[in-house]
Amino acid sequence: MDEMTRVAIIGAGHTRFGRRTDASVQELAFDALREALHDAAIESSAIDGVAIGSVPEYHQQRSLSGAVATYLNLAPCPVWLTEAACGSGGAAIRVGWLAVRSGVHKVVAVIGCQKMTDLGTAEIQALMGRVGDVQWESRFGTTFPAYYALFARRHMHEFGTTPEQLAAIAVKNHGYGVGNPLAMFRKPITIDKVLSSPMVASPLHLFDCCANADGAACLLLAEERTARALCPAKPRVFLDGCGAASASMSVLTAGDLTGVPSTREAARQAYEQAGCTPRDIQVAQLHDGFTITELMAYEDLGFCGRGEGGAFVDGRGPWLHGVVPVNVDGGIKARGHPIGATGVSMAVEIVRQLRGDCGDHQVPGASLGLMQNVGGVGQYVFVNVMRREA
Amino acid sequence: MDEMTRVAIIGAGHTRFGRRTDASVQELAFDALREALHDAAIESSAIDGVAIGSVPEYHQQRSLSGAVATYLNLAPCPVWLTEAACGSGGAAIRVGWLAVRSGVHKVVAVIGCQKMTDLGTAEIQALMGRVGDVQWESRFGTTFPAYYALFARRHMHEFGTTPEQLAAIAVKNHGYGVGNPLAMFRKPITIDKVLSSPMVASPLHLFDCCANADGAACLLLAEERTARALCPAKPRVFLDGCGAASASMSVLTAGDLTGVPSTREAARQAYEQAGCTPRDIQVAQLHDGFTITELMAYEDLGFCGRGEGGAFVDGRGPWLHGVVPVNVDGGIKARGHPIGATGVSMAVEIVRQLRGDCGDHQVPGASLGLMQNVGGVGQYVFVNVMRREA
Repeated sequence: MDEMTRVAIIGAGHTRFGRRTDASVQELAFDALREALHDAAIESSAIDGVAIGSVPEYHQQRSLSGAVATYLNLAPCPVWLTEAACGSGGAAIRVGWLAVRSGVHKVVAVIGCQKMTDLGTAEIQALMGRVGDVQWESRFGTTFPAYYALFARRHMHEFGTTPEQLAAIAVKNHGYGVGNPLAMFRKPITIDKVLSSPMVASPLHLFDCCANADGAACLLLAEERTARALCPAKPRVFLDGCGAASASMSVLTAGDLTGVPSTREAARQAYEQAGCTPRDIQVAQLHDGFTITELMAYEDLGFCGRGEGGAFVDGRGPWLHGVVPVNVDGGIKARGHPIGATGVSMAVEIVRQLRGDCGDHQVPGASLGLMQNVGGVGQYVFVNVMRREA
Repeated sequence: MDEMTRVAIIGAGHTRFGRRTDASVQELAFDALREALHDAAIESSAIDGVAIGSVPEYHQQRSLSGAVATYLNLAPCPVWLTEAACGSGGAAIRVGWLAVRSGVHKVVAVIGCQKMTDLGTAEIQALMGRVGDVQWESRFGTTFPAYYALFARRHMHEFGTTPEQLAAIAVKNHGYGVGNPLAMFRKPITIDKVLSSPMVASPLHLFDCCANADGAACLLLAEERTARALCPAKPRVFLDGCGAASASMSVLTAGDLTGVPSTREAARQAYEQAGCTPRDIQVAQLHDGFTITELMAYEDLGFCGRGEGGAFVDGRGPWLHGVVPVNVDGGIKARGHPIGATGVSMAVEIVRQLRGDCGDHQVPGASLGLMQNVGGVGQYVFVNVMRREA
């Protein structure tokens, strides 16, 4: 670990995800912040910086960060919006981490928030498609299920990965979602149910794909000494590794379609900063926007070898009592995917795991956790390693 | 000045602003980056971080930062979009400054880019309106000229400021724009021409308002030692003060409408960090989206007292040979306002002034400059102080 300012996570908040017709995006953000403040046992006046992750095009209110900051009464804290498609929450954590490490800010509220279900599915698909390369790709009809179907098909071709192995990831995550009161979907499913669900983009069935949702999550980051002074009693969690990388937004130029190079680069940075290896990770939240994205992440993060994702699933490596429990809160699959909130949501779950607060889905004794948040087909990747103070 | 990492500006680039039917937003960003790299005499491989400021809703390509980074071949540098309405460029500079000060990044490319003129004026006005509070304000028809008209009317009422004084600011800026080959408008205007131009929102005439435009600008920020090693010969400019603050996005709750409190707070931070006072500033780029915004900035930044903006204009304080030359490149008024690029554009102009590269509109011997970039009606303000190495 390097010698620079260490960043503590002193509070975490997380709304229920799903179709939230009961709340505006500002109200969702408020609920997440309020819970995080209560968790840290501090007042909002202690906050001197704000990082807001969201994808703007879903909201009638433009320039959302100003509206959220106003509703949360956070002036005169500097504020702006951070957007990296489905990685927007991870990008906001990155901004907060840089702000604290710079020494300029002492306590930063990182808020991921998104309201998607005000739009219809067709509108959302049209918007989503335009996250792909508009000039050369999305105008030919590619949307995100189609992009990831290309990865899945190639992974199957190269390594013999099967639809059943992908389906097993969905079954795992929906199974864990049953126990999560914040999740959008709380019913167990079966391999058969996945494989008999409608084909969205071959080989990805409906249950290989995540669902649009509404929700918000919040992390309070603080410089180490400030954290010790403000929150003397709390079990402390540190954001010891914060890796970030990009890759081409175009699958035409991506080269290899069996993994995400930006995940490998972001992971390399995060492991190095945190002074650990993949074998040290005890619990992980990975980006299961599609089952294939979670499977590729096992490999890209080094939880198993290249091409061994399918076997890792067969051996139940990512289950609760496996080698590295992955998405044991239900993941994006069961929790739902309010795209700006997802990255922050992942971090909240890891914090709760490291504090031992996860009840039935607690990974016993976990003290080192990881999250990986992906935007697009890897054009944005954020990998964070979090550690509980011994 | 504090003891932390000092941030140098080693390169600057700036496209021509205006109706750029000849270039996509990616191509504009490319041109700005290429010029900045040439200016710094470094290769793009030296860049290890990117901050992109833009407002997404104007572009068909969503998640623009990935598209720009791909086009600029910047992978695997981490990337995301930074949005703060018309302050997006200032916010991107802030992100780059935090990234370098954190010690995590050595050389960060800050790119502000925007293509607005693909949309029609009515579409743009509808989009702009929704930057105001959608729930309580913009649904009643307020757009930005209307918001700033409220400020102008109140300033007139409280302090006796006249339409002629506001018009004189437009005359000044358009006059300086004549000599700027990068500006959108290069014709001189008169007080009469301003006052006889159509009323947009009383008391603001057409020539009190800026124009939508396309363009890009780029700054290369580097940690001090890296800067000295990479660019040994260049006159060095440092970003010694970087202030940022927010205020309510709603004019309903703004209280006083004769100034922008977030400018005062951001300026306080920037002056303190740079160890200077308003009286030390020798050249400034202020946010003249409307003539009233420039006038209020004189006061909020301390170039003159509260309510004295009109008299400051009468005394030609902000002219080239006045107390503090302001927008002597033509400002937003003459340069045009590609909203994501504007903040970065302002910084580029200050860098060129501090290096003595400004020819006919050079402020003789300027070694300390300031820029102020505003989003919304002050919900985002970024004030930077830049200093040439003695």
